[in-house]
Amino acid sequence: MNTFGRNIRLTTFGESHGPAMGGILDGFPSKVQLDFDEIYRQVERRAPGRSHLTTQRREPDKPEFLSGISVDGVTLGTPIGFIVRNCDQRSGDYAGYEGKFRPNHADYTYYKKFGINDFRGGGRASARETVSWVVAGAICRQWLSSMGIEVHAEYIETNSVEEAKMKCDSTGGIVQGTITGVPVGIGEPVFDKLHARLAAAMMGINAAKAFEYGDGAAMASMHGLESLDYFSDDFDINNPGENPFKTNHSGGIQGGISNGMPINFKVWFKPTATVMTPVESINSNGEKVIIDPKGRHDPCVAIRAVPIVESMAILTVADFIKTHINR
Amino acid sequence: MNTFGRNIRLTTFGESHGPAMGGILDGFPSKVQLDFDEIYRQVERRAPGRSHLTTQRREPDKPEFLSGISVDGVTLGTPIGFIVRNCDQRSGDYAGYEGKFRPNHADYTYYKKFGINDFRGGGRASARETVSWVVAGAICRQWLSSMGIEVHAEYIETNSVEEAKMKCDSTGGIVQGTITGVPVGIGEPVFDKLHARLAAAMMGINAAKAFEYGDGAAMASMHGLESLDYFSDDFDINNPGENPFKTNHSGGIQGGISNGMPINFKVWFKPTATVMTPVESINSNGEKVIIDPKGRHDPCVAIRAVPIVESMAILTVADFIKTHINR
Amino acid sequence: MNTFGRNIRLTTFGESHGPAMGGILDGFPSKVQLDFDEIYRQVERRAPGRSHLTTQRREPDKPEFLSGISVDGVTLGTPIGFIVRNCDQRSGDYAGYEGKFRPNHADYTYYKKFGINDFRGGGRASARETVSWVVAGAICRQWLSSMGIEVHAEYIETNSVEEAKMKCDSTGGIVQGTITGVPVGIGEPVFDKLHARLAAAMMGINAAKAFEYGDGAAMASMHGLESLDYFSDDFDINNPGENPFKTNHSGGIQGGISNGMPINFKVWFKPTATVMTPVESINSNGEKVIIDPKGRHDPCVAIRAVPIVESMAILTVADFIKTHINR
Amino acid sequence: MNTFGRNIRLTTFGESHGPAMGGILDGFPSKVQLDFDEIYRQVERRAPGRSHLTTQRREPDKPEFLSGISVDGVTLGTPIGFIVRNCDQRSGDYAGYEGKFRPNHADYTYYKKFGINDFRGGGRASARETVSWVVAGAICRQWLSSMGIEVHAEYIETNSVEEAKMKCDSTGGIVQGTITGVPVGIGEPVFDKLHARLAAAMMGINAAKAFEYGDGAAMASMHGLESLDYFSDDFDINNPGENPFKTNHSGGIQGGISNGMPINFKVWFKPTATVMTPVESINSNGEKVIIDPKGRHDPCVAIRAVPIVESMAILTVADFIKTHINR
Repeated sequence: MNTFGRNIRLTTFGESHGPAMGGILDGFPSKVQLDFDEIYRQVERRAPGRSHLTTQRREPDKPEFLSGISVDGVTLGTPIGFIVRNCDQRSGDYAGYEGKFRPNHADYTYYKKFGINDFRGGGRASARETVSWVVAGAICRQWLSSMGIEVHAEYIETNSVEEAKMKCDSTGGIVQGTITGVPVGIGEPVFDKLHARLAAAMMGINAAKAFEYGDGAAMASMHGLESLDYFSDDFDINNPGENPFKTNHSGGIQGGISNGMPINFKVWFKPTATVMTPVESINSNGEKVIIDPKGRHDPCVAIRAVPIVESMAILTVADFIKTHINR
Repeated sequence: MNTFGRNIRLTTFGESHGPAMGGILDGFPSKVQLDFDEIYRQVERRAPGRSHLTTQRREPDKPEFLSGISVDGVTLGTPIGFIVRNCDQRSGDYAGYEGKFRPNHADYTYYKKFGINDFRGGGRASARETVSWVVAGAICRQWLSSMGIEVHAEYIETNSVEEAKMKCDSTGGIVQGTITGVPVGIGEPVFDKLHARLAAAMMGINAAKAFEYGDGAAMASMHGLESLDYFSDDFDINNPGENPFKTNHSGGIQGGISNGMPINFKVWFKPTATVMTPVESINSNGEKVIIDPKGRHDPCVAIRAVPIVESMAILTVADFIKTHINR
Repeated sequence: MNTFGRNIRLTTFGESHGPAMGGILDGFPSKVQLDFDEIYRQVERRAPGRSHLTTQRREPDKPEFLSGISVDGVTLGTPIGFIVRNCDQRSGDYAGYEGKFRPNHADYTYYKKFGINDFRGGGRASARETVSWVVAGAICRQWLSSMGIEVHAEYIETNSVEEAKMKCDSTGGIVQGTITGVPVGIGEPVFDKLHARLAAAMMGINAAKAFEYGDGAAMASMHGLESLDYFSDDFDINNPGENPFKTNHSGGIQGGISNGMPINFKVWFKPTATVMTPVESINSNGEKVIIDPKGRHDPCVAIRAVPIVESMAILTVADFIKTHINR
Repeated sequence: MNTFGRNIRLTTFGESHGPAMGGILDGFPSKVQLDFDEIYRQVERRAPGRSHLTTQRREPDKPEFLSGISVDGVTLGTPIGFIVRNCDQRSGDYAGYEGKFRPNHADYTYYKKFGINDFRGGGRASARETVSWVVAGAICRQWLSSMGIEVHAEYIETNSVEEAKMKCDSTGGIVQGTITGVPVGIGEPVFDKLHARLAAAMMGINAAKAFEYGDGAAMASMHGLESLDYFSDDFDINNPGENPFKTNHSGGIQGGISNGMPINFKVWFKPTATVMTPVESINSNGEKVIIDPKGRHDPCVAIRAVPIVESMAILTVADFIKTHINR
């Protein structure tokens, strides 16, 4: 379904070319003073059109908050409803796509799943969905930050995006994330391991193809003795401090539970599925067609994924923190 | 919590050195004829002590089914309760560990989370927990199989396990999985993407550090045009057949929903945390201690993970299938 | 939390004197053609100000649908987001209430729970919340109706509302509901019995104090032989028809599962808590205060509860139907 | 499904004439010292055969705890798995019932729902299911008790049970419950109101037909001014004490949230469906049959419901308390 989290829960709605995107953030604590300029700044980070390497679509993307917040900007403990209007619905850009299944898009699978297809902009598969994630993430970020928890992500280039764009092609990329300040003890032992939920959160981002945390895939080639994180020499069990361990092969998580070290992880993104080159496909009548994209498309989705990776990491941790407080 | 899945749900309990492991499989359909010999065979695949490279602990591991099944072995549609006794509780093996935090184990994080530590065998972090997953997986496998859905995994060696064992060290490894026969349309568009849930399932397995599906991490270095899966030349929309696409970079999933191609994925495992070499650590009093493992420990957990990877993949798909049927 | 249902789920937000109420209906099936005039008509039934016995507040209450519906009014299978603006926010009516705990209202308990109180209109405790329930109910009603399932409720007077109003007092009342056309087999055996969920749905309505189904409380005084519902003489197991049983003491449910007879139930409502007479109370400083209500208040909430009872019954049944289809 | 609760969750399994009943209590806090004699005493209260008015079936009903508890009887914070063997499976008593649909039982509805019927003892509809509720309730009772929260229920006679038994008939009855010591602020504002969940819990008990809390159904006939609970004259907002209000028409709950007064409620039970008199019915072939009960049957289920009502009230409150702590 369209809900993320257990005790802090984000439920979202919206098709990119419908009237609005939006969500409900439920379970967020009361009495948190929000800084709206900072929220808008975070949403702006996600917006397309900020550089010539990202989509040239310009959306104001200013969320309207409809509930859960006092006139003074303090959370009430009740659900925070918000919407973001789709002001720039250039459905015309999608005019040539009706009934055509774009390769590596969800068009065919949606058609088979729902028996219907509203082709304007990819429906729920649109990247525009993530605006709601970033709004909710920006709210939770302020709460986490008040506890000293910070989330940061950055883009790692794999191919020249500039070059891919010039060739009317696209490219993949990598995003690396770090979460600092998480106290020891967050996460659940078995199915709800902290890194398992983080993996699900990241793999839920469009175009994500792989996830690792800590030394990740490289650990499969290690031997045990070189993989161990030993306690720091000056480790004090009553006051573990910021670096309880000498190394961090484990990526800040042991047995699914935070160990007090920074949590770090990587997400691999495939190339943007839409390339500015005509490609063959079929349509919903089963006929062969040529798809010749117009519209606005990033040559590398990984670049724009940075604030989205941060938002999903924030939502994951906030939910665990809220759950944990009740022990 | 200790529940996996939404409409077919496995809830488990058990500490490895307590009286029994067990679980409740809820939501499994009625009128499925079970083959118990096949279930026992699957559980046996998981059992340690099958080769000199896996733990020399010998457990009968025969699940006792307590409900949800008629005397003729047909499911009733009611919850299937089962237990697996821990017959071979050599707590003595753990005698030297009391209060000591083994490196790269969950001892320290559990202690901080629960404020208590029952050190005998790692509590819920024990690999023994997975016996319940395999029991539930073996049941669901028969249901999936009746629909033509098969799940298979295999171990990929990274270092010589033989050599690691001789050096009283351990090694990591990789497990590769394939799910065939999944119809188009399984999975949910946004947070519950098929691969997102699969990632969470796999990362929930002890020692898993990385996950990818389809061409995975390699896609981050691809260009768009080389990443596209085109429909097969003889694709028939009314009868997609087994190979609807020419290639399978996507790994059988588009937009979080199965596209009719085989679903393939990889999981990277870190080296076994327990090595047969003395290591330094601290105990719950904060004192420095030496840990000198006895007991029974696989030099490579990835080998034994194979049936566990299969079981979690099965439970993931079964849950989606049950959810999907109701559209 | 603010979510109702499992496989068809309504999540709501909104404070009565904030910008808008709204909700997300998730899990609703695709390909259902909606009749919007009928939806608006249902919402209008709930609106206050329709007679001199109900609140003289006049709200347009026209829901704006933001997603999940095609331009042709057909559902997409994706979440249906909607909002209803609060156009008539006469906060002035609540001007005299700041910090005062109105007797039999949630003011004191909210204050203690959330540590904050946005006194304008009762926050989430406002009757205005139910506008979202009626919107979602009106959507689900059309789907149920297409399967022959109809829900109807009516008000049963206990005291003269006219007289209570003249005395600046209020009165309680009863609402009786009937659900027809539910096929045999809906509901779950143990904790999710059909009538248990129906009870929770009804008791979730403001001012509800008691619930019964079938012969209800009267059955506690019956003997077994007079309580039995025997199969009809012409009962045909392969074609049970509309009246499979001779009597309906059971109210259409046996063991938590529908038996094919009409499902009937009753809900008792307490008198409106706000009476147009000054009453004593205390405020959040613990000082004694007099509360002298202005504003708009129904003398009998049970009258306006009729479409709300219907909506919650519809949402309950729709969720079970969706869950049931997948067996 | 077969799970009750959100943050403290009981999942159960078992058919009365299968090998065992059992459950998993997940989310229960760590470091609670359990008194097992007291648990067994509570389970014994539920057991049949304690008086000549309750079933003459004698079961030892001693739960076996399989996990989640240290050797010293302290909870670990991990799931508590337990089973209760069905030692006294007199299936012979049910020998005459094969394929026959007993009136007012779930036989017909189960048959239609699951397409299968294991007629021995009513399957999941058996009263024996409640042994798991009482085990879990007895554990949670000790935790609540340590916080000063106590739950008590008692039976209210409506007809002479003695007389009903002599006439080979049965009778209904009422159970009244009280929960004391609940702090202000427990419960959720909208769908998860404390009394809504309590209603669902009670209506989930077999044979329950009606529920009320506080002055309940009688409030529907009251006027507003006589229904108001005013703050006590000596009410101190910083130290509300045991009787913050002068009266308790509201039954300890305002707006779905506890107000610090005792929570009281009533549950009405229908007569035992099985009477020791031959009755007409049909079987699964649609043929008319006579059912002539043997076996062991209480003439009044309400008597035995007392500890079950207590257990479900305990589980409801414990779940809310655990959820509440995290604000």
